[in-house]
Amino acid sequence: MKKLFFLQCHKKGDPVKRSFIREILEVIGSDTVSFAGGLPDESLFPIEEMQKASQEVFATPGALQYSISSGIPSLREKLASYYSAMGLETKSENILITTGAQQALDLISRIYFTAGTVVEAPAYLGALNAFSANGCPLHPVTLNPTGLDMDAFEEKYKQTKRAYLMCDFQNPTGISYTDAVRQELARISVENDGIIVEDGAYMELFFEERRAPLSLYAPHNTLHVGSFSKTLAPGLRLGWIRGDTKLLQPILALKERSDLHTSTLSQLLADRFWESGFFGKHLRKIRAAYKRKCDALADELTSQLSDFCFIKPKGGMFIYGTFPDEIDAKELAMRCLKNGAVFVPGGEFYSGAPLSAEARFNFSNATSEEMRRGIEIIAQTYKSYKDHRERNGA
Amino acid sequence: MKKLFFLQCHKKGDPVKRSFIREILEVIGSDTVSFAGGLPDESLFPIEEMQKASQEVFATPGALQYSISSGIPSLREKLASYYSAMGLETKSENILITTGAQQALDLISRIYFTAGTVVEAPAYLGALNAFSANGCPLHPVTLNPTGLDMDAFEEKYKQTKRAYLMCDFQNPTGISYTDAVRQELARISVENDGIIVEDGAYMELFFEERRAPLSLYAPHNTLHVGSFSKTLAPGLRLGWIRGDTKLLQPILALKERSDLHTSTLSQLLADRFWESGFFGKHLRKIRAAYKRKCDALADELTSQLSDFCFIKPKGGMFIYGTFPDEIDAKELAMRCLKNGAVFVPGGEFYSGAPLSAEARFNFSNATSEEMRRGIEIIAQTYKSYKDHRERNGA
Repeated sequence: MKKLFFLQCHKKGDPVKRSFIREILEVIGSDTVSFAGGLPDESLFPIEEMQKASQEVFATPGALQYSISSGIPSLREKLASYYSAMGLETKSENILITTGAQQALDLISRIYFTAGTVVEAPAYLGALNAFSANGCPLHPVTLNPTGLDMDAFEEKYKQTKRAYLMCDFQNPTGISYTDAVRQELARISVENDGIIVEDGAYMELFFEERRAPLSLYAPHNTLHVGSFSKTLAPGLRLGWIRGDTKLLQPILALKERSDLHTSTLSQLLADRFWESGFFGKHLRKIRAAYKRKCDALADELTSQLSDFCFIKPKGGMFIYGTFPDEIDAKELAMRCLKNGAVFVPGGEFYSGAPLSAEARFNFSNATSEEMRRGIEIIAQTYKSYKDHRERNGA
Repeated sequence: MKKLFFLQCHKKGDPVKRSFIREILEVIGSDTVSFAGGLPDESLFPIEEMQKASQEVFATPGALQYSISSGIPSLREKLASYYSAMGLETKSENILITTGAQQALDLISRIYFTAGTVVEAPAYLGALNAFSANGCPLHPVTLNPTGLDMDAFEEKYKQTKRAYLMCDFQNPTGISYTDAVRQELARISVENDGIIVEDGAYMELFFEERRAPLSLYAPHNTLHVGSFSKTLAPGLRLGWIRGDTKLLQPILALKERSDLHTSTLSQLLADRFWESGFFGKHLRKIRAAYKRKCDALADELTSQLSDFCFIKPKGGMFIYGTFPDEIDAKELAMRCLKNGAVFVPGGEFYSGAPLSAEARFNFSNATSEEMRRGIEIIAQTYKSYKDHRERNGA
């Protein structure tokens, strides 16, 4: 178990160009079972309620018009109340609406990470790619099952005063930071007068409990990034940043230059949906459904692919683990893709995309039947790949 | 007349922070008559047809799901046909959907303008701001009523091999480049193996005729930027880039890192609306309405504010011109704002926001009654400001 989340770099990969995941999404056929993306289950989308909301929205003067760069006030007020209710006092001016959480990360890194930032290893690929594209030097700190290597973190944070962390059901590993780790990280950010960017994209997808965000312990030294992509609908491209106005101000100016503002229609739809009172019920429904799906995938992996070692997550959308050390998970993934199933090799989640035996499996998108079939394909491919390696004395 | 579009810089303004226009949009009261933004007339939005489209869209599997970074195929195919029909052969892989034309400009400048670009003087403020924010050195070339100062253009383009031009109903000036100028600019781009970014945001808003885009004469050396904001609905945040795939590829990679993809819902709505066959009729309707509005504003300006000198445009959304040289249009605009009407001072459209006597008036958003009242306020404010200056011997 101690090998988990501790990467053995064999050699450097090619420089990152496009995201493996998004390239895969564009080429896979409809009969390929994909464990690759972080796609929500379409059958859980609240289509009827959104249709109803859209009828109301189109009756709103200006639903199709330009709107202000920071986001429509009523949605920002709701988000402010959401944070205040969890003890993190927030006003609507502490909320900036973004075109998905991805834009939040792009903008934040262009403003605050240009001299470098601490990142998790492994970390969310879309963040690493955005930060790299924007020329931000990355200082990776290894994850462990309760959070980070704290000594390494503090040492690197003292230099950069910036960190990007996903404390809840981390992408890709699925781990959650303990409360003690969150508090300790908050202390370090305050003592160093730095900033921690906390990505809360998965925080509402808990199977047992929601932990208080790290931001609660350092409200003025954090930017909390949120998303409607995992809880409502990714197609809306709707996210936000919560933080002190003085931290948000330069982000707002850059946001305005990047796309003027986020879709008025998407904002109004989410606002009306929230207003309808249906959100709480919807969240309970998807949490229960994703827990069942997580159980189903864990069962398939355990029974069909026993060489794959993982810790079952308590929320989120991913099971992460490792094949035996000698396996090149990227080569295995490409072979699986040819056979009709695909996952993401773990090396993709490290700066420089090194070779790795680790792998991430998404459980939110596939049906039980697809899981069974997909893991069977992967298990067979794995067996023939391993036999081939052994025959060739690799 | 020869003074038009030829700026006398008195002194450098403050460094550009946020857009004057967007800041104004956020603070003006509902009883202020605004000639400031480039807002379409909300009463012309095809609300019923969009409502109908939304009902169909919500029946589409995946309407709320993630989609591919380059944009949904059927919308890209329609845009490709649109260009092919005007003689500019285009396939769907030559189209990249963006989150408004603003994102297109942000992305293009981050990839292609980092070593500098030629820009028009005056130019679209959102472009200047995005390019500046991205650290792109700007090389302004003065506009004249038929296009650009060609000698200055060629000299600067030979150094930068990059230019950003709005050939149709330019924002802010309203001028259109002649066919001869377009062909000459195309020749220069090809001879220098450079790129011209042609912003076609207003090209469909013609009152008399649509000219062939500059891109037609240099299909491999141009990136043509388009937008649904002026023709359909800005609230959707929907634009695109047309260009060679090898030019689009790095933009696509950056787009993916910036916001993954543009709202699936916005794309599907525009696609369905287009498919309904209503777009042509809608365009004819808004062209006729904007022509009437342009006439109305021109009449008000001529009769109430005869010191303001302008050339009436043949399309677009703006009347641009100049007050007598000694007037500081920014101070006048701020005085007018206090009195209940606002326009954009011309200095905002120049790199460095210098003092200027020029001004831009939008005619697409206000009603005839608001125009009459707004120009009356501006005329009275102008008179008292001029009297005040004369009394003080300024």
